Amino acid sequence: MGILNVVGIGPGNKENMTFAAYDAIKEADVIIGYTAYVKLLPEEFKNKEILSTGMRAEKERCEIALREANSGKKVALVCSGDSVVYGMAGLIYELSEDYSDVEIKVIPGVSAAISGSALIGAGIGNDFAVISLSDYLTPKETIFKRLVAAAKSDMVIALYNPVSKTRKDSLIEAVDALLEIIDKDTPCAVARNIGREEESYTVTTLIGLKETEADMFSTVFIGNSMSAVVNGKMITRRGYKI
Amino acid sequence: MGILNVVGIGPGNKENMTFAAYDAIKEADVIIGYTAYVKLLPEEFKNKEILSTGMRAEKERCEIALREANSGKKVALVCSGDSVVYGMAGLIYELSEDYSDVEIKVIPGVSAAISGSALIGAGIGNDFAVISLSDYLTPKETIFKRLVAAAKSDMVIALYNPVSKTRKDSLIEAVDALLEIIDKDTPCAVARNIGREEESYTVTTLIGLKETEADMFSTVFIGNSMSAVVNGKMITRRGYKI
Repeated sequence: MGILNVVGIGPGNKENMTFAAYDAIKEADVIIGYTAYVKLLPEEFKNKEILSTGMRAEKERCEIALREANSGKKVALVCSGDSVVYGMAGLIYELSEDYSDVEIKVIPGVSAAISGSALIGAGIGNDFAVISLSDYLTPKETIFKRLVAAAKSDMVIALYNPVSKTRKDSLIEAVDALLEIIDKDTPCAVARNIGREEESYTVTTLIGLKETEADMFSTVFIGNSMSAVVNGKMITRRGYKI
Repeated sequence: MGILNVVGIGPGNKENMTFAAYDAIKEADVIIGYTAYVKLLPEEFKNKEILSTGMRAEKERCEIALREANSGKKVALVCSGDSVVYGMAGLIYELSEDYSDVEIKVIPGVSAAISGSALIGAGIGNDFAVISLSDYLTPKETIFKRLVAAAKSDMVIALYNPVSKTRKDSLIEAVDALLEIIDKDTPCAVARNIGREEESYTVTTLIGLKETEADMFSTVFIGNSMSAVVNGKMITRRGYKI
């Protein structure tokens, strides 16, 4: 029986990878992943057999992983951030019904909502929503319904995929929708290239987000009524009396 | 200058701890944390200086950490799961203004929404909300407003602190509120003692949650319209055509 570990590698650096994730990659006969993420793996794994597929080839990538594992190999299917949250684990389970000789294990990782929240300060202290602005698999109407629901109920929001080459204005559209609900001066932040060499962040306000640089490698944080800026960091208080 | 690392240790086992978290604890002169979580630390740290405080002594715990760091020590303030999400990082930043000689670093960890989601299958594949049912710091009205908002906008929901000694019925109350909005057969799950020896999980339905055991060490997952049960696991599809 082959083993398929679906591995969340965290933001990219070894520091923010878990021991289980590292070990699963180390012990793998073959590593499979999205081309851009495979490049982030620690140097010591670069001489292993690596199969990579491009963006939007997720189904193909999962089928390769299942086939390789079904042939008896130990496979690590790597996902940036977590293996489940916007990752491949669900698709693997769905497709696995055709592969009887595969033992699947899902290894969680630090998703960008979590790693980015620490980078900008303590962005998410309390209840929160994680919403991707990508309309590739989710209708735009559903995305905006979620945004509005989260803002109206005073949750902190972490936005994944805030913009892309074909969605240059999606962050601005989201901000415009949020400006109808929450104060324009609500603390917000952009975390960029978390855990990578070019890591950076900007703490701003909701209205300020419209002028703040964000790209495909950014995670955007929208504060709630408990958010504040302390020493240039964005924090969200939990409610302790101090 | 002293160093204060606010460390998310993940669910408890070393496997799901990041390298950065482990190293911060290893290099610490003193470890500070909630009594129950300090016990979860790997054996090799048990001979270090450890200061622990009880539940709800969060402010005291943070002040001890800041004082120890301010005296020049290297401090690891450990939090279960993540250091920010329902963790101590925000409070540390708030209180830090009185301590000028402390360098603060926040080290993220795998929060229970993420580790539990992997344990039950692939619970969170898409947009989601994380909501704590504890009304210690958040009014119950706000909590239920968030629950309703998340369910109405078809987000997966991860519930933290589903019950406690003084809130024996809070999960049942939450399920009753959700039954007004989403189908009673929606896939749901309970993850218990994630990453610990007694780890277990149950996959059920929304109505089934009313009969499913959950305690203070459980995280509850409420599916959305994309959730399904595959081979006894709860998954939430992202929307790929298969």
